[in-house]
Amino acid sequence: MKERRLALFSGTANKPIAQEIAKRLDTTLGDIDIHRFENGEVYVRYLESVRGAEVFLIQTLSYPVNDALMELLICIDAAKRASAARITCVIPHYAYARQDKKSAAREPITARLVADLLTVAGADSIITMDLHQGSIQGFFNVPVNHLTALGILADYFKSLKLDEMVVVSPDVGRAKASKKLSELLGCHLAIMHKVRPEHNEAEISHVIGKVEGKTCIVVDDMIDTAGTICNGATALLKKGATGVYLGATHGIFSGPAFERIKNADIDGCVVTNTIDIDEKIAKDSGITVLSVAPMFANAIGNVHTNKSVSELFDPEFQI
Amino acid sequence: MKERRLALFSGTANKPIAQEIAKRLDTTLGDIDIHRFENGEVYVRYLESVRGAEVFLIQTLSYPVNDALMELLICIDAAKRASAARITCVIPHYAYARQDKKSAAREPITARLVADLLTVAGADSIITMDLHQGSIQGFFNVPVNHLTALGILADYFKSLKLDEMVVVSPDVGRAKASKKLSELLGCHLAIMHKVRPEHNEAEISHVIGKVEGKTCIVVDDMIDTAGTICNGATALLKKGATGVYLGATHGIFSGPAFERIKNADIDGCVVTNTIDIDEKIAKDSGITVLSVAPMFANAIGNVHTNKSVSELFDPEFQI
Amino acid sequence: MKERRLALFSGTANKPIAQEIAKRLDTTLGDIDIHRFENGEVYVRYLESVRGAEVFLIQTLSYPVNDALMELLICIDAAKRASAARITCVIPHYAYARQDKKSAAREPITARLVADLLTVAGADSIITMDLHQGSIQGFFNVPVNHLTALGILADYFKSLKLDEMVVVSPDVGRAKASKKLSELLGCHLAIMHKVRPEHNEAEISHVIGKVEGKTCIVVDDMIDTAGTICNGATALLKKGATGVYLGATHGIFSGPAFERIKNADIDGCVVTNTIDIDEKIAKDSGITVLSVAPMFANAIGNVHTNKSVSELFDPEFQI
Amino acid sequence: MKERRLALFSGTANKPIAQEIAKRLDTTLGDIDIHRFENGEVYVRYLESVRGAEVFLIQTLSYPVNDALMELLICIDAAKRASAARITCVIPHYAYARQDKKSAAREPITARLVADLLTVAGADSIITMDLHQGSIQGFFNVPVNHLTALGILADYFKSLKLDEMVVVSPDVGRAKASKKLSELLGCHLAIMHKVRPEHNEAEISHVIGKVEGKTCIVVDDMIDTAGTICNGATALLKKGATGVYLGATHGIFSGPAFERIKNADIDGCVVTNTIDIDEKIAKDSGITVLSVAPMFANAIGNVHTNKSVSELFDPEFQI
Amino acid sequence: MKERRLALFSGTANKPIAQEIAKRLDTTLGDIDIHRFENGEVYVRYLESVRGAEVFLIQTLSYPVNDALMELLICIDAAKRASAARITCVIPHYAYARQDKKSAAREPITARLVADLLTVAGADSIITMDLHQGSIQGFFNVPVNHLTALGILADYFKSLKLDEMVVVSPDVGRAKASKKLSELLGCHLAIMHKVRPEHNEAEISHVIGKVEGKTCIVVDDMIDTAGTICNGATALLKKGATGVYLGATHGIFSGPAFERIKNADIDGCVVTNTIDIDEKIAKDSGITVLSVAPMFANAIGNVHTNKSVSELFDPEFQI
Amino acid sequence: MKERRLALFSGTANKPIAQEIAKRLDTTLGDIDIHRFENGEVYVRYLESVRGAEVFLIQTLSYPVNDALMELLICIDAAKRASAARITCVIPHYAYARQDKKSAAREPITARLVADLLTVAGADSIITMDLHQGSIQGFFNVPVNHLTALGILADYFKSLKLDEMVVVSPDVGRAKASKKLSELLGCHLAIMHKVRPEHNEAEISHVIGKVEGKTCIVVDDMIDTAGTICNGATALLKKGATGVYLGATHGIFSGPAFERIKNADIDGCVVTNTIDIDEKIAKDSGITVLSVAPMFANAIGNVHTNKSVSELFDPEFQI
Repeated sequence: MKERRLALFSGTANKPIAQEIAKRLDTTLGDIDIHRFENGEVYVRYLESVRGAEVFLIQTLSYPVNDALMELLICIDAAKRASAARITCVIPHYAYARQDKKSAAREPITARLVADLLTVAGADSIITMDLHQGSIQGFFNVPVNHLTALGILADYFKSLKLDEMVVVSPDVGRAKASKKLSELLGCHLAIMHKVRPEHNEAEISHVIGKVEGKTCIVVDDMIDTAGTICNGATALLKKGATGVYLGATHGIFSGPAFERIKNADIDGCVVTNTIDIDEKIAKDSGITVLSVAPMFANAIGNVHTNKSVSELFDPEFQI
Repeated sequence: MKERRLALFSGTANKPIAQEIAKRLDTTLGDIDIHRFENGEVYVRYLESVRGAEVFLIQTLSYPVNDALMELLICIDAAKRASAARITCVIPHYAYARQDKKSAAREPITARLVADLLTVAGADSIITMDLHQGSIQGFFNVPVNHLTALGILADYFKSLKLDEMVVVSPDVGRAKASKKLSELLGCHLAIMHKVRPEHNEAEISHVIGKVEGKTCIVVDDMIDTAGTICNGATALLKKGATGVYLGATHGIFSGPAFERIKNADIDGCVVTNTIDIDEKIAKDSGITVLSVAPMFANAIGNVHTNKSVSELFDPEFQI
Repeated sequence: MKERRLALFSGTANKPIAQEIAKRLDTTLGDIDIHRFENGEVYVRYLESVRGAEVFLIQTLSYPVNDALMELLICIDAAKRASAARITCVIPHYAYARQDKKSAAREPITARLVADLLTVAGADSIITMDLHQGSIQGFFNVPVNHLTALGILADYFKSLKLDEMVVVSPDVGRAKASKKLSELLGCHLAIMHKVRPEHNEAEISHVIGKVEGKTCIVVDDMIDTAGTICNGATALLKKGATGVYLGATHGIFSGPAFERIKNADIDGCVVTNTIDIDEKIAKDSGITVLSVAPMFANAIGNVHTNKSVSELFDPEFQI
Repeated sequence: MKERRLALFSGTANKPIAQEIAKRLDTTLGDIDIHRFENGEVYVRYLESVRGAEVFLIQTLSYPVNDALMELLICIDAAKRASAARITCVIPHYAYARQDKKSAAREPITARLVADLLTVAGADSIITMDLHQGSIQGFFNVPVNHLTALGILADYFKSLKLDEMVVVSPDVGRAKASKKLSELLGCHLAIMHKVRPEHNEAEISHVIGKVEGKTCIVVDDMIDTAGTICNGATALLKKGATGVYLGATHGIFSGPAFERIKNADIDGCVVTNTIDIDEKIAKDSGITVLSVAPMFANAIGNVHTNKSVSELFDPEFQI
Repeated sequence: MKERRLALFSGTANKPIAQEIAKRLDTTLGDIDIHRFENGEVYVRYLESVRGAEVFLIQTLSYPVNDALMELLICIDAAKRASAARITCVIPHYAYARQDKKSAAREPITARLVADLLTVAGADSIITMDLHQGSIQGFFNVPVNHLTALGILADYFKSLKLDEMVVVSPDVGRAKASKKLSELLGCHLAIMHKVRPEHNEAEISHVIGKVEGKTCIVVDDMIDTAGTICNGATALLKKGATGVYLGATHGIFSGPAFERIKNADIDGCVVTNTIDIDEKIAKDSGITVLSVAPMFANAIGNVHTNKSVSELFDPEFQI
Repeated sequence: MKERRLALFSGTANKPIAQEIAKRLDTTLGDIDIHRFENGEVYVRYLESVRGAEVFLIQTLSYPVNDALMELLICIDAAKRASAARITCVIPHYAYARQDKKSAAREPITARLVADLLTVAGADSIITMDLHQGSIQGFFNVPVNHLTALGILADYFKSLKLDEMVVVSPDVGRAKASKKLSELLGCHLAIMHKVRPEHNEAEISHVIGKVEGKTCIVVDDMIDTAGTICNGATALLKKGATGVYLGATHGIFSGPAFERIKNADIDGCVVTNTIDIDEKIAKDSGITVLSVAPMFANAIGNVHTNKSVSELFDPEFQI
């Protein structure tokens, strides 16, 4: 079947990655008017026809997340009413992913709520990366193409040619992903976890596994305020580690994060561009930013031409 | 049937009206933890059981509207998962109401989208006031209890004992509501509308109907940036009006609104407390704020005890 | 993408417009058996395959509206079960449009109900014209292509080369549409509205704006029993108007309408063929009927070939 | 649990049965305004509060069926929007029941469509009687309380104390129901079916089983135009039957039906009042009408007080 | 429109018919891993891409039916999540079809439940054969292509060149289908039904119509335990029939069925391969198995190329 | 509000726990007929009225899981059609929970599918225990009451008064739950994980953390074939552990599990009765079975009387 016309649009949350994706796909971003009224309401209008087109909406859900989400929902609504044939949301970073279960009574499951909002607005499929929890895929009943940056993070660390690496999981919840990284790097695994010995005493970071004399690679799905991970780095050095590198797919860096990274006793910090980071700030804080735009461009291309997405990636890296 | 337990909670957008409603209902607001993470994500947790309760969530959709809306959606989700028997959203001001149709190609209909978001999250019914357009009620398939402040606005103007009043619709789209107000006040109706004589010339405000020698009452559903309505006041005075009063249910007052109102050539401006306004700013800008909390309290009480809501109001004021 | 096969079918409510549309599209109406059993039940069967076709069902919702609606719903059901690829309802006149909100307690919102009935039966998109209220578009979550006859009505009045025209809105609710027409005609605007001075006294038609010495153009979205609009014409003449022309997109003409139009003190009356009118009766009553079939044909053609529908029309006429 | 308030309303299709039901339940019909505009649109408004009530809407789907159905749908919509707690449709005769499958290519399944329309409008449960096909119950996902008049028809025939009865199924499709009746009457079963020997020759009614010297009881679920069943009576007499009685739950009697029954060579014809029949016409045509109002009243009463409905009936008569 | 890629997969319930269908369509079955874990859970994974493909899943619902159904549902889920463009379930034998109505209080309608399960999992259309009750089509809102084996069963009996055939319906519920077969064979119809004269006495098989001196053709939609049909054969011989042939579309043959058929006083038994039957067992029991694979292959081919399915079959055989 | 009548029914998968729950609630199990036809189809009929009742259906999803699931779905369908007021599924063990994400391309997410099947059948809420993954709660939009046996497992181990306990997570995926148990027991945590050094070499169990000289407590959510966990026990002893205890909420024990447990080099194995285990086999295999019936009874009681479920449990144990 001849392909439907591909129509690529970007929200305002991360224009640079959208432009890089468009360039990779040898196309340009569609013309769209997105602005905010003084009272905070978002206005959207497509300035070119999307009738019968296969629309890809690129919008990461970064700070301010509720504005970014609402903008995406309104873009979906407008595309649906303008007779788009299919609407795929390309969401490099999926917000609210940590609220994926009730961990206390009477909590919401906001990650599911967000999935329902996207679906009711009219999303036909999703392309995203390194969800905090794989089962968030199951919060959708539309197809989710779930990419991972684990491969390019592993490649980055390999390229550093470090001696005596050990992958250290920042907490027990990330043990599984850390193990996968340790396999990609061909090294051992250790696990940090926090214990609060008595009420009103400070938490202590325990480390299970050997880190003494090793270069620790601590990779999480996201770095948010960077407090825990920087404290972890300090703890590892106290246990005799010779160096610590931090990494994550999603560099949220809220509040004091950049300051903390800058001042942390670490040898490096690497994230991807799923969330837009000011180049200068990154440089000042010693943060390396890898681009995942080629992965998204390939995924969009294959989705559009009905080629397998999973075959794009070395099976070792596949989620 | 014995009533279900009433459980009243408030979001963070307009706590004062919620507290006033609770007081009127001789109860207190339920204990709930709502806060924001540094990356902008909202966290919600009910600190008391809502199992089997009839939950009323009071949240106006005011600036920043997307945060207010997302907070409400998450509150609904958490109440639903905590086995609330019924969830009623009390939304004094419904945002995005002006996007109630496509007025240009490829626009969204965001007022419908918001209705769908509330419904998919789990809202069982809605109590709101003076929707920009009555047919927004039909964007819902759950019951909408639609209150109006027209009656208390009319009462206010009557209490001023003004001579020679004329109700002036601020534009052709509000002619119907203005006519209703003119009936409540027992006076004539005039209508303003704007004409742009040639491209690149400024719009001129036309007035249809007699305003010379009269005190003009200009009432809209909302005052947002206040530009149009203040210009209208000036135009009316030029046409020989002896005075101008402005009024609205919803005092959004975004951007330069307070400044404009303060400097406008008007005799008074009155709104209600559907949106929270700082008392001092209101006073400085010469804005009178009427409380609609009693109306909401009565409506909630009647919904809860299965009494008629429409019978609460004098049929003349009924929408 | 090569287009899907276009399959055009007509219900029984307005065959002439369907035939004209088909002719314009250089095709013929598909073979379908629609008849009624003696007990009033409708029977439908497609006499040719619609498998994989893009089906357009042309059915106006005119008297008897419930039969017309049920016929359309059954046509949709049969097309869906016969594996049509996409079903677009072409509804020149959308019935129940005046029931678009609750204007008294415990009323239905039938315009929304009709939208839900069409959707649950299986409609994938809608093409319609001059909805009583633009926000009825938002009663659907499928795409609505909303056409307007305002342009051809304006062209018609321009062709009459009348002196001193003024557009008079028949009531405050139509002020906005009347203003748009006045812009298309480059003339002034006046507004009629009714006032009931005391209980048990007859309503009086007020006119805001100048009509003395002018030819009044009174255009509504529909002329139903024609009572109000004919009384309005008389009132305008009393106020010194030199002539009155009536117009509407939808000529419903129920009950005494034709008689009233015939006897009214007017210079002309113009409607379109969204509802089928007997040619002889129209002539006898002095009614001019303009065809909107070309507009529907163009819209269907563009929908089918995934071209923009909005670009079909001069932006000035766009809704 | 204390019961919700019972609120009983009737559509306009069969007011007498509704009044009889109300009387049996020791209540009165609720106050409701249902009228038709000149263009055929139906208007509905409840004149008393239904908030929190358990609403029963009595409306049979008889000629004109589309008006009756639309009226019911609008009543449901209005009750839902007026915050009724639960809406039960009491539909003595369910129209379109014969369109319960595709018996030719590209036909609709209108009986399912009607079920979907009722559900999307907001029906929470259904009470009906002698569906043409039992599996129509499965077209609903809301509870269907399916009553049968077979018992009272059997009682009626028993009361006639006829000699040598045989139940004759009017065609092969009713063989199962006829068998059930023959068991209730304790007599034999015969079956009629039609054969068309050659193209262009008239159909011949075959009878399988012995009817000679017997009084034939021919009972169908409905008598519509009465053509087939009257011809069948003649055929049975030709085969030597000594008498023929006709019966049905639903007396539709469209077109020439009354005339045919009057002139038929039969000893009696009995139906129930699921469809309203003019008393005089019934008498003139020799039709006995049995009331099923007590059965509906009992069913409504038990639904309302959460008692078993099935236990109302002798298990022998249960469907 | 160029066709989408056809992708044909088979569940494990009836691989031989799937292979025969694939061969007829000149293709091969797609590569899929379906296995069961030790705890009975089913695992499914497609071993080739289905992105953008038109997927046909062939799975008959035979013993153990719940495993077969769950396997099919999981296959649908996996195909949907893997971005299949359209998923058609090819279900030669539809289980739970006898539970198509409530025939006693508080029974389920499992045939509807199964339809809902298939739909919620993601089935876009259904191809099946000889449903126990035609109205099961209406349990779906997706297109159902309903094939029938009546034609090939009739052809088979014609090929036997039997003298004095009579079609005997095995009970009153199958009278309609038996009549259709009698028309295809050009012979008479008789009907068996069971009567239980008194409590605690055995049922007696009655026969309505003449079978003496005739070869009886007894065809049902399915033969399950074969008890009733074999007793029926004996009863027919007692009434003077000269021979009895049994037939059915679906040869379920549970429990003692094969033994009963083998020992029955019949001249032959014929079924189709909608359910897989061991060739040796069939032969030993004297059962002839006709293949309906060509019918399914033609139907799949026409669905895939958007050609009419109904036109595939001689209208005489059409359901 | 007075409570609705509680109606407790059990499927056939784990009758003993249902009986124990009923006894705890001082009631008896409702009368229901559940049996299987020879072809594997399940038949269900409630033998007492459930109209207006709050129905709790107790059915664990154990071997054969597809039959258990289908039985539950049919029970839901029948209760819904019999007008139950609310249907809560009590599912001690939720099957297919390990298929909670796509871990390879083109896999299903069967845990979500099962949630959708339960919901579409008519489940209004769920009570379950120790889901393999907490976020499975989010696969539902109905309330999920998620209980945990971690507390009673911890109590059991405390009661053994073992020296030098260490909790060992059986793999990286269970690290988080194991940490929670270590906190309850006030001891350290270690983690096992498997490494495959080269292709075609056997996996090696690594242990991170100190186990030498300690009694290892290895607790998983379920023990299925018991292969991995028994090998783990051996590995721990090789590393110098002085003893190993195994535990799990769900004792699936498929295939060779009992044999393996019996022969394993362990000091004890404890599970709960979410899945029914033959008492004798448990004893022979040295398995201790703790009852969670009191927890389920308390949860059902509180759900029924609208009391908080979370407050039933010591917050330390809360999930």
